[in-house]
Amino acid sequence: MNDATSTAEAALVARLAERLGAAHVVSALTDIEPHLIESRGLYRGRALAVVRPRDVHEVSFVLAQCSEAGLPVVPQGGNTGLVGGGVPHGGVVISLARLNAIRGLDPVNATITVEAGVTLKTIQDAADEADRLFPLSLASEGTCQIGGNLATNAGGTGVLRYGNARDLVLGLEVVLADGRIWNGLKGLRKDNTGYDLKHLFVGSEGTLGIITAAVLKLYPKPKATVTAFLGCEGPQAALQVFERLREGAGDQLTAFEYIPRFGLELVLKHADGVTRPLQGEHAAYALVELSSPRADADLASVIETVLGAAIEEGLVEDATIGASEAQNAALWKLREMLSEVQGREGGSIKHDVSVPVSRVADFIVEASTACEAAMDGIRVCAFGHFGDGNIHFNLTQPVGMEKAAFLAEWERFNRIVHDIVHAYDGSIAAEHGVGLIKRDELKLYKDPVAIEMMLAVKAALDPRDTLNPGKVVALSPEAPAALPGR
Amino acid sequence: MNDATSTAEAALVARLAERLGAAHVVSALTDIEPHLIESRGLYRGRALAVVRPRDVHEVSFVLAQCSEAGLPVVPQGGNTGLVGGGVPHGGVVISLARLNAIRGLDPVNATITVEAGVTLKTIQDAADEADRLFPLSLASEGTCQIGGNLATNAGGTGVLRYGNARDLVLGLEVVLADGRIWNGLKGLRKDNTGYDLKHLFVGSEGTLGIITAAVLKLYPKPKATVTAFLGCEGPQAALQVFERLREGAGDQLTAFEYIPRFGLELVLKHADGVTRPLQGEHAAYALVELSSPRADADLASVIETVLGAAIEEGLVEDATIGASEAQNAALWKLREMLSEVQGREGGSIKHDVSVPVSRVADFIVEASTACEAAMDGIRVCAFGHFGDGNIHFNLTQPVGMEKAAFLAEWERFNRIVHDIVHAYDGSIAAEHGVGLIKRDELKLYKDPVAIEMMLAVKAALDPRDTLNPGKVVALSPEAPAALPGR
Repeated sequence: MNDATSTAEAALVARLAERLGAAHVVSALTDIEPHLIESRGLYRGRALAVVRPRDVHEVSFVLAQCSEAGLPVVPQGGNTGLVGGGVPHGGVVISLARLNAIRGLDPVNATITVEAGVTLKTIQDAADEADRLFPLSLASEGTCQIGGNLATNAGGTGVLRYGNARDLVLGLEVVLADGRIWNGLKGLRKDNTGYDLKHLFVGSEGTLGIITAAVLKLYPKPKATVTAFLGCEGPQAALQVFERLREGAGDQLTAFEYIPRFGLELVLKHADGVTRPLQGEHAAYALVELSSPRADADLASVIETVLGAAIEEGLVEDATIGASEAQNAALWKLREMLSEVQGREGGSIKHDVSVPVSRVADFIVEASTACEAAMDGIRVCAFGHFGDGNIHFNLTQPVGMEKAAFLAEWERFNRIVHDIVHAYDGSIAAEHGVGLIKRDELKLYKDPVAIEMMLAVKAALDPRDTLNPGKVVALSPEAPAALPGR
Repeated sequence: MNDATSTAEAALVARLAERLGAAHVVSALTDIEPHLIESRGLYRGRALAVVRPRDVHEVSFVLAQCSEAGLPVVPQGGNTGLVGGGVPHGGVVISLARLNAIRGLDPVNATITVEAGVTLKTIQDAADEADRLFPLSLASEGTCQIGGNLATNAGGTGVLRYGNARDLVLGLEVVLADGRIWNGLKGLRKDNTGYDLKHLFVGSEGTLGIITAAVLKLYPKPKATVTAFLGCEGPQAALQVFERLREGAGDQLTAFEYIPRFGLELVLKHADGVTRPLQGEHAAYALVELSSPRADADLASVIETVLGAAIEEGLVEDATIGASEAQNAALWKLREMLSEVQGREGGSIKHDVSVPVSRVADFIVEASTACEAAMDGIRVCAFGHFGDGNIHFNLTQPVGMEKAAFLAEWERFNRIVHDIVHAYDGSIAAEHGVGLIKRDELKLYKDPVAIEMMLAVKAALDPRDTLNPGKVVALSPEAPAALPGR
């Protein structure tokens, strides 16, 4: 514990240690270090202690104590967030890692009841064993925890067919700022007994309450899958192909991921064990997946019909269909490596944005042109969940530029890209959330009445502002300063 | 305007008439009569005036004026609700009927933007013309309005595949109690810019704000449909058949509606132009629909495979598959007539409940047994959205009993049925909402912290309690008394 710790704070930490056990209330810098840093290492926080309650009652105790003392509490799951939402500024970090039980799985109701600290991968595996699918799928699925996925309303590659994290939740157990426990763990498909409180907590980034358990929806497990990789002359053609696939495949279209030529070339340059999927180069690529719970669904003929017609009309220049699990995995790897390889090419300025699907191609073209005009040699890597209108609009530094000099331009490019997003009726925080990074920028683009309502709800549920203060909205003047917009 | 109207209230009504035009602020009893009664005629309210704003700005003006004056405002769409949520107790009724424009339809984004007063049927038709589907489907679709559908989070027969009304909303425009306008009319599939406010208003029954417009999701239009009607030995067998169909048909299973023998016999007895769908009688029937956006989807073979196996194993006793549109419509009519024919058989005590799907068969058996034990000759008509776990657990009076004497037992049967629902982790208000009818009963079954949060949210957004006061929750001691639980 550092020198600045007051007697009152020390007494509080002692009370927590008494209830949770000394082993689960740690203050030594070496122990708490991993909880102070943000996953990309961009920011570093500080905390009195990291506490690891074992159940909802201990979570309740910690929150009641901290609320009483007016001390901030920052919840953390796998600490894989990308917007500084888990960075503490004093107070206590509460790790949900020990709440890691799967409480039950009901295959007929198609639900699984899990505690907040269960990793996403563990839930996927449990569903799979029961011949079901839990469709949330993210790059960090091996380490991220479901509590964090829900608190941030995580997106990922399954959204096109199955929705965001919030769409997969039927019930929640939540501890409020003052320690009250809400038992809303219902597994119902229809329930109109009043306001839908679960949707308040999902996506609130730990600022309204701490999710300790959830009832999640499961789906029939896909028994047939086909994966294709196609090249076309640009985003407009890709959008038309997307439409054709949606018409032709309906619900069987379970992924449509967009990769620009520059992105694919980066993967081929920097990643190991990847091969060029199509002969020649194309301005735009798409990774397409169709799947069905019916083993006898003839997905190959569906995709061949659609792509055949699209090739005939010149919308698709070339395409390949995976002929085996291994080939499918190799095609997916090209998409999955995209985030990582950008770092190997130098500095990268990133934007997680969305627009209406009908405007996603126009958006990519307009925003790319604007960024290229703003800096000679900048390289646009706009990729991602095209079928959701969600683009990771990333900018790679010009060859030979100083990385730091490039990153110093972050705010300028935020304004260029986000102004265009706004003009397209889009969102400047599509799937990663607001956290501390986009909090103040939100005021530039969000309807002011929406922000007033957010503050009113925050004040109603956390009047002392002890739950992850300063994240998403700044209730008190003493809230931590927003982080630079990256 | 009645004699008790105060000078201040008269002045307010005059101000509203000045802004909206005298033709759209009516007070004569003959004019306002249709707005005072509940759709089943069970309750009768009173109001100073009915006002009919033409746009969101006029709605804002009305709400600001009423908030200032502390006068209640009750919003009404088609006034087809079943829980007394639209019954006024003084103050002003605000009809959304003149906000009836379809503002736009984007086929590629698969969205339609509509004002609150557009009828559900008009939206379905507009989607259909654009070769899309708006899947919300209710008995009252010709007269109910989308604002009311969203305010009550309507359910219906499309929920199994497409979700409740809330799942079909991407964005909202809402006027708050004090007249502030929230423009949240985004058509985005991913948007994590803060708390999800739209889900607060959907299902809040007009107590937190008045929805004036919405961006709704559209789906590919089904191009192939197969409808079947099957008989089996009881709800347990029906549940197993449901599971088989979900496994075999996946997303193509778009309806699974349950009808008990007594229900079918009532339809055959009282409805015109219906014929017995299967030879012989069966304890339980199900109406099943499979559909697909692919015209070449071989749905008949899917359902024949599943039902063939189920007949072989004795799970299904008999089944018929519609061979034409006309035959499909005839099978659906058997289900659609169910509500109406109960009224022709005498008094009916109704419960709109849900339980986990895995427990729906057990629930029907246990609740039926309990009701039959509680009154000699009572006839259980438990039917409905079996695949959602949502049962309309209705009770028809014994033959020869006085209707009024039977209905006097409503509260006693509420307790019997709802106690069992609660024991099954279910909901006592599955799709019709809370309104004034279930408000006080909610306290018996809902988590107390949930009710505290609902009150906190209500107080935060409508501190003067002028928006549909006393519905869902009672914020002020002066709130209207709850209506008898029916």
